[in-house]
Amino acid sequence: MATASAIRGTFFDLVDDPWKHVGREQEAARFTFDGLMVVRDGVIADFGDYAEVSRRNPGIQATHIKGRVIVPGFIDGHIHFPQVRVLGAYGNQLLDWLQNWIFPEEEKYGDRNYARGAAGRFFDALLAAGTTTCQAFTTSNPVSTEEFFGEAARRNMRVIAGLTGIDRFAPEGTVISPDFFYRETKRLIGEYHRKGRNLYAITPRFAVGCTDEMMEACRRLKEEHPDCWINTHISENPTELRTSRLEFPDCHDYTAVHEKHGLLGPKFTAGHGVWLSDDEFRRFSRAGAAISFCPLSNLFLGSGLFRIGRATDPEHPVRLSLGSDVGGGNAFSLIRVLEEAYKVGLCNNTMLDGSVNPREQDMAEAERNKLNPYRGYYLATLGGARSLYLDDVLGNFDVGKEADFVALDWNAGQAAMGWHQSLITGGNVPETMDQAAQLLFGIMVCGDDRNVDETWVAGRRAYKKAGA
Amino acid sequence: MATASAIRGTFFDLVDDPWKHVGREQEAARFTFDGLMVVRDGVIADFGDYAEVSRRNPGIQATHIKGRVIVPGFIDGHIHFPQVRVLGAYGNQLLDWLQNWIFPEEEKYGDRNYARGAAGRFFDALLAAGTTTCQAFTTSNPVSTEEFFGEAARRNMRVIAGLTGIDRFAPEGTVISPDFFYRETKRLIGEYHRKGRNLYAITPRFAVGCTDEMMEACRRLKEEHPDCWINTHISENPTELRTSRLEFPDCHDYTAVHEKHGLLGPKFTAGHGVWLSDDEFRRFSRAGAAISFCPLSNLFLGSGLFRIGRATDPEHPVRLSLGSDVGGGNAFSLIRVLEEAYKVGLCNNTMLDGSVNPREQDMAEAERNKLNPYRGYYLATLGGARSLYLDDVLGNFDVGKEADFVALDWNAGQAAMGWHQSLITGGNVPETMDQAAQLLFGIMVCGDDRNVDETWVAGRRAYKKAGA
Repeated sequence: MATASAIRGTFFDLVDDPWKHVGREQEAARFTFDGLMVVRDGVIADFGDYAEVSRRNPGIQATHIKGRVIVPGFIDGHIHFPQVRVLGAYGNQLLDWLQNWIFPEEEKYGDRNYARGAAGRFFDALLAAGTTTCQAFTTSNPVSTEEFFGEAARRNMRVIAGLTGIDRFAPEGTVISPDFFYRETKRLIGEYHRKGRNLYAITPRFAVGCTDEMMEACRRLKEEHPDCWINTHISENPTELRTSRLEFPDCHDYTAVHEKHGLLGPKFTAGHGVWLSDDEFRRFSRAGAAISFCPLSNLFLGSGLFRIGRATDPEHPVRLSLGSDVGGGNAFSLIRVLEEAYKVGLCNNTMLDGSVNPREQDMAEAERNKLNPYRGYYLATLGGARSLYLDDVLGNFDVGKEADFVALDWNAGQAAMGWHQSLITGGNVPETMDQAAQLLFGIMVCGDDRNVDETWVAGRRAYKKAGA
Repeated sequence: MATASAIRGTFFDLVDDPWKHVGREQEAARFTFDGLMVVRDGVIADFGDYAEVSRRNPGIQATHIKGRVIVPGFIDGHIHFPQVRVLGAYGNQLLDWLQNWIFPEEEKYGDRNYARGAAGRFFDALLAAGTTTCQAFTTSNPVSTEEFFGEAARRNMRVIAGLTGIDRFAPEGTVISPDFFYRETKRLIGEYHRKGRNLYAITPRFAVGCTDEMMEACRRLKEEHPDCWINTHISENPTELRTSRLEFPDCHDYTAVHEKHGLLGPKFTAGHGVWLSDDEFRRFSRAGAAISFCPLSNLFLGSGLFRIGRATDPEHPVRLSLGSDVGGGNAFSLIRVLEEAYKVGLCNNTMLDGSVNPREQDMAEAERNKLNPYRGYYLATLGGARSLYLDDVLGNFDVGKEADFVALDWNAGQAAMGWHQSLITGGNVPETMDQAAQLLFGIMVCGDDRNVDETWVAGRRAYKKAGA
């Protein structure tokens, strides 16, 4: 039996979807002012008030994390491993940005040394941002997928990834044949899926870059490996959307392309979904399929404003994660992603309040766009886990889940931060759920990676901020 | 005669409006790889290549700033001194945000001790962000205006500010009478305008909060003190815009309210202008009036997307500055403002490329929305100076201007930053204008206040980043 370790501190996590508790979002959260988490083999063996948990676990030695709020590790539902270095490239929308910046960089990842060095930098950046799980695109060269999983395993991190399938509209060094994709995916699934914490996603890059043959290869792979995930992009940019109409004349919309090939369903995630219609949202909801909302990227590439309030329609709720979409997104930090998600929500709120166009007024949808801290941290943790069908092992501090968490310093960051936060608790630690939520809101809208003081993976500290 | 000092380093500044050089933006910039700036009495006495300038100034001792790009100090055209502490308040659009968060905080600034302490924090935050000049709102209590100017004078910073006029739609502790506003403004102009580097702005908060009598008081003040600035808000939010229609039935649009009272003209700045019509942009252009573009705030309060490409129409160009609009904006850093400005531009670009609505296609306007580094740093420096009619003393390194500048570290910030920037120069210093511009672009879209390593005011170092 493994030795248990324990962490004492102030914990905040979500236990339900706050959109199910409109106006009473606290019901979806749990605040543990003086808490204790017992970890055994990387899994939460006990959790609750310090007084009770310490009584149940006599003699246990706890690491006491003081002056911080501990939240579950952030889950990034959509990120590109081979784009670390090209985050923030200049001046193009999606399709020409891919050609000018992304494909040339991704080709370098055929070199194992380059890919290995990049993997170290990628996971360092994730941990410094408080992200403990990601669903990642690699490249169409298996070397990059292998190096990605290798580095994740060395760090014992829960990740989802897979070889990228693309067989048109890309340079020669990037396209691969559906047959190669099929064979290599099978080999990689055998080698990596469910090995340690690694999980495999069948990964058609995006339908516009895939022929029917490539999409059929994905269908076959999912049929033969139903336990695997599927990860792709959808409806990111209006020009892309128009292209999809031309390329798939037999499909009445972009989602139908995925339905036609049997891909839309549980454990399917499509990044973006900015331009999805109401009907497509409903079909995602019915299918149990997920969207990864990538506001940093959607603003950076000018893709548009994702309709949060529509996706959270209580009659047709769509499973949502947050994605940094590095390098379309210009930062690794899900705190920065939350900031931009908040802004997209407020912009939508204004468009729906009737002040711009009275015919588009929808006050309930307008309200659902507003990311209070409960909704925000839900998306970054438990909501992301649910969207990825990983809530049995991730997303909050329930006993039996994996002990990935982040200790947040609410005063770190820009010069004005400490004084701002002192409005909430007068400089003291938060003693109520409401105070904790307000400090967490301060972090999500005024903060960044500097607020991540420590990141723990499977019960071990994997990152500590320098100088703090 | 004062002793001269000198700074040696790599300098980048703008000498013209890059929108006048579409596709050849380098013509608007100046890159000095090994430069020397000689400062006498806070003013640039000589500037150029080190070899030449050092020959012209024999025996001068220079501070050598290595591994940095030195740019002119940032100019924030729109910021609220009494909102330091409430930056990032939750969940409302403009009008209810003012009532719930802003007015209660601003009332505290009637207490001289509170206002003085806040002024210290405010200028500390500005300098840490690389901002050396701002045009600021204070409150409707003269105490806050006095403390603002007092602290600016102690730091020898070039600032514009004034007592805020508001006489309706605000709590009792915030509204003041037009008569009180008139008398106190005259007193404050006498006491502070052109004393040291302080400049005074007649400051009607926003027309919706001002009766005709208040606006007439502003007209009289401007007639009696034509050297003073005017600072206000316009067309920030659609509900505000609709309210203005109701409150000013004799004015056919929001701009007309300012025309009616004789305020629109040189040295007039209105923050936001998100919802200005094409015709209003043309009238701003003709009048020589300026808009301060506040993208952090416009996204944070969901106000909307400012039409950069329309405001930079070559036939009717409007003078533009950038504004953080703290606390509507959620950061002091103009680097973060540039990031959001870039994003707003790209979102506009997509809306105008014909892919969404072919009837709204305008490829030239679409292109003008794209903030390359020349355009971005122009807005933050020389463009801001021109919009405020301060380009005789600020905005670039021309001899005779005031020596306010910032030394930027292109590698600082999020974990991925250094490797990202190494794509441009392989880890070396920039040797060409293009390399410098690309590193500066990396800062503006992936960076934040951490990239500000040193801030110099009137030839003296006023800020040095801790631990760097």
